[in-house]
Amino acid sequence: MPRYKLIIEYDGGGFVGWQRQTNGRSVQAALEDAVAGFCGEATTLTAAGRTDSGVHALGQCAHVDLTREWSAETVRDAVNAHLGDAGVAVLSAEMVGEDFNARFSATERRYLYRIANRRAPLALDRGRAWHVPRPLDAGSMAEAAACLVGHHDFSSFRAAECQAASPVKTLDQLDVERIGPEIHVTAAARSFLHHQVRNMVGTLALVGHGKWTPDDVAGALAACSRAAAGPTAPPDGLYLTGVTYGEPPPS
Amino acid sequence: MPRYKLIIEYDGGGFVGWQRQTNGRSVQAALEDAVAGFCGEATTLTAAGRTDSGVHALGQCAHVDLTREWSAETVRDAVNAHLGDAGVAVLSAEMVGEDFNARFSATERRYLYRIANRRAPLALDRGRAWHVPRPLDAGSMAEAAACLVGHHDFSSFRAAECQAASPVKTLDQLDVERIGPEIHVTAAARSFLHHQVRNMVGTLALVGHGKWTPDDVAGALAACSRAAAGPTAPPDGLYLTGVTYGEPPPS
Repeated sequence: MPRYKLIIEYDGGGFVGWQRQTNGRSVQAALEDAVAGFCGEATTLTAAGRTDSGVHALGQCAHVDLTREWSAETVRDAVNAHLGDAGVAVLSAEMVGEDFNARFSATERRYLYRIANRRAPLALDRGRAWHVPRPLDAGSMAEAAACLVGHHDFSSFRAAECQAASPVKTLDQLDVERIGPEIHVTAAARSFLHHQVRNMVGTLALVGHGKWTPDDVAGALAACSRAAAGPTAPPDGLYLTGVTYGEPPPS
Repeated sequence: MPRYKLIIEYDGGGFVGWQRQTNGRSVQAALEDAVAGFCGEATTLTAAGRTDSGVHALGQCAHVDLTREWSAETVRDAVNAHLGDAGVAVLSAEMVGEDFNARFSATERRYLYRIANRRAPLALDRGRAWHVPRPLDAGSMAEAAACLVGHHDFSSFRAAECQAASPVKTLDQLDVERIGPEIHVTAAARSFLHHQVRNMVGTLALVGHGKWTPDDVAGALAACSRAAAGPTAPPDGLYLTGVTYGEPPPS
């Protein structure tokens, strides 16, 4: 049974999230419907990251098994043709072995969080970035972010609904960089807790506004309680940018 | 009568273009309605570039006269509040003298044209770039673009509806650059003919596909006939990025 690895881009704005749900249109269902439209097969796609409603992807990765063998290019083009204007596109397809699992074989997931830090509302980037009108100090946010990198109990940044077995994770990267009127937060880890990136960004924004110090963020982490950290940043600014399989690249 | 200079961003997708028209929603009308909503005054905005339907702006410039004097920040924030989700935002406002005219005082207009040169459809940039699935050679496009820079009769790149007094213009810059899967065409001139940038980009794409040589573009320019040049590129990829007043920056 041939297995295909798909790299997928989507605008999360029109979806209830990656995962198929009864209460609205999911990215997974849009793709599974497009696969069915193309080859008539009822399939289940497995993704590296089950992104929430409103969260975007530039490089989501999923796998799907088909009974009949097609060239990878045919799978890519035919699924895209059936997706139409759905706001989802397959960037590439590749035939892989049955030992490849988009979720369990992933060794690193990377996210970008875009903050539009300007007074004016967003005409072009509405839904594509978190609009924060008051000035943020990216330098102190970067200092606070450094406290979160490493092997920690991230309970303070974990959503109540989180299904992970353990709150202990290794955060490999959490960089904060000002690029003109935007602040970009880049995060990388083998895996993340539910809402972890958005909860970290919401907390870093408190530092950017001068309400919290970087030490307060270290204290919130040590408290191991969701109530100790800051609010959840909106999904609009979050992008799953890529997934690594095998050895993660040297940092 | 206080005059205000506004720098404006918009998503051209939902509009019939800058100019107020009877057949649909224009950017100008959205702004004039927002001004009326804020201060009750019926005004006419004058813009540096009367962009077409679907063309975006990152730095359109317009002026408006109000009878009552407000702080520039109040004008910016109040107009934005009345614009709401219109897809238009005032980035900045500034009080200027009555000798300032957003259209006639402009000494340089700058445009960016984004081509998304990849096989897969656009999930996030639909309507924000021209999707060209077949590979384009940016090097030969850049070579052809260089033939168009300078003082020329641009009749070959002029729309039939163009109202300019003369087809002779000075094109200061026309750069072509590949940035990952995108090709960016950057154009600067004191003024442009109607559809000039889109007609130049459509012609450069013929070169990028190897159908035309750079010499063919020089020949099309010399022919001084619209029929001699290539097709009009779609509005989706075009952005008015900025307008200069006074001396243009040294190139």
